[in-house]
Amino acid sequence: MKPTDSIFLLGESREHPMHVGGLQLYEPPQGAGPGYVREFYDRLVAQRDFQPTFLKRPATFWGGIANLGWYYDKDSDIDIDYHVRRSALPSPGRVRELLELTSRWHSSLLDRHRPLWEMHIIEGLSDGRFAIYTKFHHALIDGVSALKLMQRALSSDPDDTEIRAPWSLPKRKRKSSPTSPFRSLVHTAGSVAALAPSTVSLARAALFEQQLTMPFAAPRTMLNVKIGGARRCAAQSWSLDRIKGIKKAAGVTVNDVVLAMCSGAVRYYLLEHNALPDTPLIAMVPVSLRTEDEADSGGNLVGAILCNLATDTDDPAQRLQTISDSMRSNKKVFSQLPRVQALALSAMNMASLSLAAFPGWVASTAPPFNLVISNVPGPAQQMYYGGARLDGNYPMSIALDGQALNITLVNNANSMDIGLVGCRRSVPHLQRLLAHLESSLKDLERAVGA
Amino acid sequence: MKPTDSIFLLGESREHPMHVGGLQLYEPPQGAGPGYVREFYDRLVAQRDFQPTFLKRPATFWGGIANLGWYYDKDSDIDIDYHVRRSALPSPGRVRELLELTSRWHSSLLDRHRPLWEMHIIEGLSDGRFAIYTKFHHALIDGVSALKLMQRALSSDPDDTEIRAPWSLPKRKRKSSPTSPFRSLVHTAGSVAALAPSTVSLARAALFEQQLTMPFAAPRTMLNVKIGGARRCAAQSWSLDRIKGIKKAAGVTVNDVVLAMCSGAVRYYLLEHNALPDTPLIAMVPVSLRTEDEADSGGNLVGAILCNLATDTDDPAQRLQTISDSMRSNKKVFSQLPRVQALALSAMNMASLSLAAFPGWVASTAPPFNLVISNVPGPAQQMYYGGARLDGNYPMSIALDGQALNITLVNNANSMDIGLVGCRRSVPHLQRLLAHLESSLKDLERAVGA
Repeated sequence: MKPTDSIFLLGESREHPMHVGGLQLYEPPQGAGPGYVREFYDRLVAQRDFQPTFLKRPATFWGGIANLGWYYDKDSDIDIDYHVRRSALPSPGRVRELLELTSRWHSSLLDRHRPLWEMHIIEGLSDGRFAIYTKFHHALIDGVSALKLMQRALSSDPDDTEIRAPWSLPKRKRKSSPTSPFRSLVHTAGSVAALAPSTVSLARAALFEQQLTMPFAAPRTMLNVKIGGARRCAAQSWSLDRIKGIKKAAGVTVNDVVLAMCSGAVRYYLLEHNALPDTPLIAMVPVSLRTEDEADSGGNLVGAILCNLATDTDDPAQRLQTISDSMRSNKKVFSQLPRVQALALSAMNMASLSLAAFPGWVASTAPPFNLVISNVPGPAQQMYYGGARLDGNYPMSIALDGQALNITLVNNANSMDIGLVGCRRSVPHLQRLLAHLESSLKDLERAVGA
Repeated sequence: MKPTDSIFLLGESREHPMHVGGLQLYEPPQGAGPGYVREFYDRLVAQRDFQPTFLKRPATFWGGIANLGWYYDKDSDIDIDYHVRRSALPSPGRVRELLELTSRWHSSLLDRHRPLWEMHIIEGLSDGRFAIYTKFHHALIDGVSALKLMQRALSSDPDDTEIRAPWSLPKRKRKSSPTSPFRSLVHTAGSVAALAPSTVSLARAALFEQQLTMPFAAPRTMLNVKIGGARRCAAQSWSLDRIKGIKKAAGVTVNDVVLAMCSGAVRYYLLEHNALPDTPLIAMVPVSLRTEDEADSGGNLVGAILCNLATDTDDPAQRLQTISDSMRSNKKVFSQLPRVQALALSAMNMASLSLAAFPGWVASTAPPFNLVISNVPGPAQQMYYGGARLDGNYPMSIALDGQALNITLVNNANSMDIGLVGCRRSVPHLQRLLAHLESSLKDLERAVGA
C-alpha cells in the first residue's frame, strides 16, 4: 500500500470518517412501472465481475504504518447485498428526507473487513424520482475519480437502457493523466516529509508569497474547530445560465462567480450565528494550472490556490471583484514559481488537510484557510442511467478537524450542482446554506445587472 | 465510570460494536390515518426532558482505562432529530426488508460524541404495521434493562393513547434488585481479577464440577471464530401455546423446550453447512437461581449455566431430555455451591464473554461454550403503545469474537419472540435459522406427541 493510501486509513477514526460520497437524483423514463427501481437494483446486483478497486480491503489494521497492505477479495467473496442496498424515504418523501438519510450514511464508517464501498438505491421520493448514494473510502479512490467513475456508467443516449454496474466497468485506457489531480497532489503531500529541507523552504517561501496577496491571515471561525462524528449533507442545483449571466456582465470566470456565490452564502450563515470575523475568510481552491499546450504533456499541475473570499464587505459586486483579483493574482504567483516549488507549495497546502485528521493538529496550528471550495468538471450533456435522466449529481466530500464545512460543485448539463458536507455539531442548520446560496446568487445578479 | 461500564467502551472496536438493540413491531389502532406514524414521531420528539441515562457520553477516549469518565449533556444539548429518526422500507415492504434495515443499524457504531442511544421509527410495512428499533450502548444499559425500559413506556390499556418517550420516563422506585441480573453478573466479572486467588480456585473447581456433567468439552465450531464488523439480524414470533404443549407432554420446563427448539435449529443449520461437530454443542444460559423466599432479600443470584445441547443426536425427544437433565443437574451444582463460589463461577463464565471483545483472546483459548441463549421475561399481557398493539418484541444482542451467534428470547403476551444476531460473514444466511426453528419445533411436537 502506498503511503498516500494509508494516510487516509490511519487518519480515520469514528470522528473522522475518510470516505467520499455522491448523491445522484434520477427521473425514471416515461412509462416506468412501480417495480422500476427494484428491477434497476436487480439488474445492477446481477453483475458480479468486480474491478480490483471494488475487491480491495486493508489486510491488517492492528499493525503500524509499515504493516498496512491491501488484500484483494475474490469475486465470489463479495456479499453484493451488503455493498448494494435498497432503501426508501419516510413520508412525505421530499428531498429533505433524502438529505436526512444521506447525512446518516455519510456519518457511518465503512467496514474494513470488506472492500471499502457502498451503494444505496433509494425509492420513495414523492415526485416519483429515485436516488443513488455511493460511498467510497478515500484510500480506494478520491472524490473526483469516484465522480468520474460513476459518470462512466452513464450514457448521453436516453434510449440506452443498459444499466452498467460501476464495479464491473472495464478499465479506461490510460490517458495522459493516470491519476486525478487531487490524488496526485495528495501523493506529493505524502512525500512532503521526505522532501529535502531546501524544497520545503522553497514551498514556505512560495506560501509566504501567496499569502502576501492577502490582507490578513485566515481568521479562526466556527468552521475551524474540532469536529464530531456525525455529518449533515445538503444539496441543490442552480441554473448554469444564471451563473454565466453574471460571469458575462462582470467579466470574470464561472469559477469566480461560484466562489462569490459561496462566499456570500457563508457570510449570511456566519452573520446569522453572530460569528462573522472582521477579517475576510480564506478559501482553498484546487485549480488546474496546466496551459492548453501542456494538456497532453502528461503529469498534473494543480494549484492549491488560496482565495480571499472578501466576507468583510457587504457589497456583492466588490466581493466578486476581490475574489476574481485574488484568484488571478495567486494563480499568477503559482505560474511564476519554478515547477518543483509550485508542487511543493500545493503539497504543503494539501498536507495540512491530511494532517488535520490527526488529533492535536488543529489545536496547535492556525488554519491556513477556512474552508475548501472545489469546482469539479462534470458532464456537459444531459446524461442517463438505463434511460433514467440524471437530474442532480451532488458530490459529498470530507469534513475534518479544523475544516468543519466542505463545499464541492459539479456542473451537470445546464446546472451547477452543489454538495455541502458539514459536522453536524459544529455547523448547525447546514441546510440554511442552501437558501443563503440562492440569496447570494440573487445579490450578485442584482449587483452586476445580470 | 465503573470498570464494569468502561469494559464495554474499551472493548469496543469497529468489529465489535458493544450495543444492544430491540426491534418492536406495532399494529396501529383501528382508524389510524396515513399520517399516524409521523404524528407518533412528532409526539415522541416533542418530549425534551431526559433522564440521566440518555444524557451520558464518554468524557474522554484518548486516555487509558483510568481516565474514562461520563459526561452529562444538558437537555438543551440533545439534537433529538439525530437520536430519534424516521425511516421507511423499500418495496415490497415485507418483514424481510425490515430485518435487512435492522441488520444495518445493528452493525454501525454509536457516535461517542453524543449520548449513546438511537431510536428509529420505521414505516412502509406493506401490511400497515410500523416498527421501532432502539439501540443503546451496553456501557449505558444492559439488554435486559433496555427491554424493561422500553416496556415501561407501554400500557396494557388499548385506550391509553399517551405516547411516553422512554427517555422521559420517571425513574422507577428501586425494588429489591437495583440492577439487572446480567449487569450484576458482569459487575462481579469485572472484579474477577481482584478476587483472592483462593476464590478463583473455588470458581475453577466449581466450573470443573459443572463441566464434569458434560460428556465432552465444547467443540470448536463455525460459530466460534473471529468476527467481522457487520451483523445480520433475524426475528420471528412463535405461539407460546405450542411451547407449553411440549412442556406439558414431556414434563420439562418452558426454558428446556425453547433450548431444545434452538438446539435443533442450530443442528439443522450446521448440518446444512457440513459443519456439525461429533460432540454436542454447549450453550451458556443465564438463569435466575433465587428461590421464592429469597425473592425479596435483595441482591441477585444468577447462574451462568452450561447446558449440553445434545446436537450429536438426531432424536428430538432424546435431545429435549438431555437438555432438561443437563440444566437440572447444573442448576443443582450451582445451588449446592457456597454462595461466593457460585458467584465466582458465574463471573468467570461471564468474564470470558467480556474478554472476547479483546483481540487475541479467541485464538488463545478454547471456547467454554458455543453460544449464549438467553430467555428473558417479557410482559404476560398484551401491551399497547399509544393505542398501537405490540405485535413483536425482539431483543437484538451482541456478537463477539468466538461467539458469532446470539439467541435471545422474550415472551410477549401469548407469543415467544426470538431475536437472532450473527456476524454477517461467519454466520451466512442467518435467516435460515428461522425456518429451522420452526422445523425444530415441529420435530419436538411430533416426538412428544404434543
